[in-house]
Amino acid sequence: MKLINYTFNGTTRAAALVEEQVIDLNLAYEAKLVAEGEYRAKEIAHAFVPATTDELYQGGQKSLQLADEAVAFILENPQASKQQAIFAREDVKIEAPVLNPGKIICVGHNYREHILEMGRELPTHPVIFAKFANTILGPDDDIPFYPISEQLDYEAEFTFVVGKQARNVSEEDALDYVAGYTITNDVTYRDIQRRTLQWLQGKTVDGSAPMGPYLVTADELQDPSGLDVVLTVNGEVRQKTNTANLVFSVQKLVAFLSNLMTLEPGDVVLTGTPGGVGVAMTPPTFLKDGDVVRIEIDKVGALENKVATVKEAVPTA
Amino acid sequence: MKLINYTFNGTTRAAALVEEQVIDLNLAYEAKLVAEGEYRAKEIAHAFVPATTDELYQGGQKSLQLADEAVAFILENPQASKQQAIFAREDVKIEAPVLNPGKIICVGHNYREHILEMGRELPTHPVIFAKFANTILGPDDDIPFYPISEQLDYEAEFTFVVGKQARNVSEEDALDYVAGYTITNDVTYRDIQRRTLQWLQGKTVDGSAPMGPYLVTADELQDPSGLDVVLTVNGEVRQKTNTANLVFSVQKLVAFLSNLMTLEPGDVVLTGTPGGVGVAMTPPTFLKDGDVVRIEIDKVGALENKVATVKEAVPTA
Repeated sequence: MKLINYTFNGTTRAAALVEEQVIDLNLAYEAKLVAEGEYRAKEIAHAFVPATTDELYQGGQKSLQLADEAVAFILENPQASKQQAIFAREDVKIEAPVLNPGKIICVGHNYREHILEMGRELPTHPVIFAKFANTILGPDDDIPFYPISEQLDYEAEFTFVVGKQARNVSEEDALDYVAGYTITNDVTYRDIQRRTLQWLQGKTVDGSAPMGPYLVTADELQDPSGLDVVLTVNGEVRQKTNTANLVFSVQKLVAFLSNLMTLEPGDVVLTGTPGGVGVAMTPPTFLKDGDVVRIEIDKVGALENKVATVKEAVPTA
Repeated sequence: MKLINYTFNGTTRAAALVEEQVIDLNLAYEAKLVAEGEYRAKEIAHAFVPATTDELYQGGQKSLQLADEAVAFILENPQASKQQAIFAREDVKIEAPVLNPGKIICVGHNYREHILEMGRELPTHPVIFAKFANTILGPDDDIPFYPISEQLDYEAEFTFVVGKQARNVSEEDALDYVAGYTITNDVTYRDIQRRTLQWLQGKTVDGSAPMGPYLVTADELQDPSGLDVVLTVNGEVRQKTNTANLVFSVQKLVAFLSNLMTLEPGDVVLTGTPGGVGVAMTPPTFLKDGDVVRIEIDKVGALENKVATVKEAVPTA
């Protein structure tokens, strides 16, 4: 399933994207329950296939399975829902497939070929750092460029979302704890990132994590290795790698992270970016107003956002 | 007001600590509304003085004011609530004054005397890093010591909680955006913190942010400067400073952080720790099972937690 959140008439809800149709999962499941003769269809639907993805992840594999069956039902019985449950793609706004995660964990220095070409040794442990949920944007949003720096940079990141509480999970079992895969642009204010030892301040500026275009659920992408990753700016290729080059694979990251902390459904992990970021070009080349950044990953789709300069809001009085 | 969350009979709710009494804020306010003849007392109470602190912070100064009035009411009219609204301190468990913040922002290298004694220059910008909400414990909890390291260390941190959405706030207005003050022990697995460039992995281990003993609301602590901070381990003084020595004051931090990101009610900021951590002792002296770490800050109270070795859970099958 291609899982999204969509906004229609001011409300944001979970859906599946099926070709150019957006299928509301909660309403589809409620309609299926009604058709099956259930009296408490609304309450059961809310419990098992709730209205946003963040709640849906808490239901784990079972909820995703029920959602999947509901999509099949409503496509065969499009009149079964009293409320509109099927929308045309162009009639809604698509949001990130995670709205308010408790953790956004980013991995640094994780592409083998890039580390070796820099003459460095492969790290023994992942480098991890954070972004907060204020950074999340969807595929239909522009990347805000705040006038706090002139060094706005991109980082293509293959991303997974946790689907089940994880603590001390082994590499062998790790993929059972993944809800699915998506793409994040780890937008970075490069000079702000580098002005102190810790990167957080250049990483967690509002709107610096465009994510999407959807979550490909793990049942449809069983092997997260071997996927080509390409980032372009205005059509020019800037980053290009393959997830086979990850030093710490998805499995290793789940094991490593869950040994330190309890991972919760909806937690997001950005697995790292390869070479080719703007600051490393000769001369360094940063993003500017109107630039279009596109990240494409095999089987996961393409995330495309435009950079839009923001006039800084007047300080609150 | 001394704001807490308390757990009784399996449910965690917001309360004020008044001497040795725990006053449930939502129930006290509902009782006051009923006494005033309101029909929809439960719904109004839920809207304005909700049942947990995290929701309460969203109501801003108005909700804290209503909560304060409700405490005065119920203490004068202890029979006014149909449900038990007043508990003895010893009959409940006290939790952290924030349960699930969207952001825990920590400031590094922020005590002037310590930076100067190390022969370093004062920083031009705050160093900031993150913890996630999986770290939060309350004053009645033990600090879990997981067998992933032998270098468990303490850091006394004067802490503030955001009380109102803040974006580009000036230093002059900054304190209007603070709900109140508390104490955090920024428990750190020192070797894990230092094995990569980014500190996050040694900082966000489960249970590594004991917090409390309560939040002193900003109306009762108008000047966050000039407060003595003392940390002891088993009664021996290890860290000692005064918040007047902060390079970046609460006001400067609100201004700095809100220029990068939108701060939300309930977000937590740990303002930094002075010299005297265990790793800097000669020889380095780390925490061990049974050690009692106590942090006392003028006007903010004392947070005391015992270290308790945890047998690591068997990996989930």
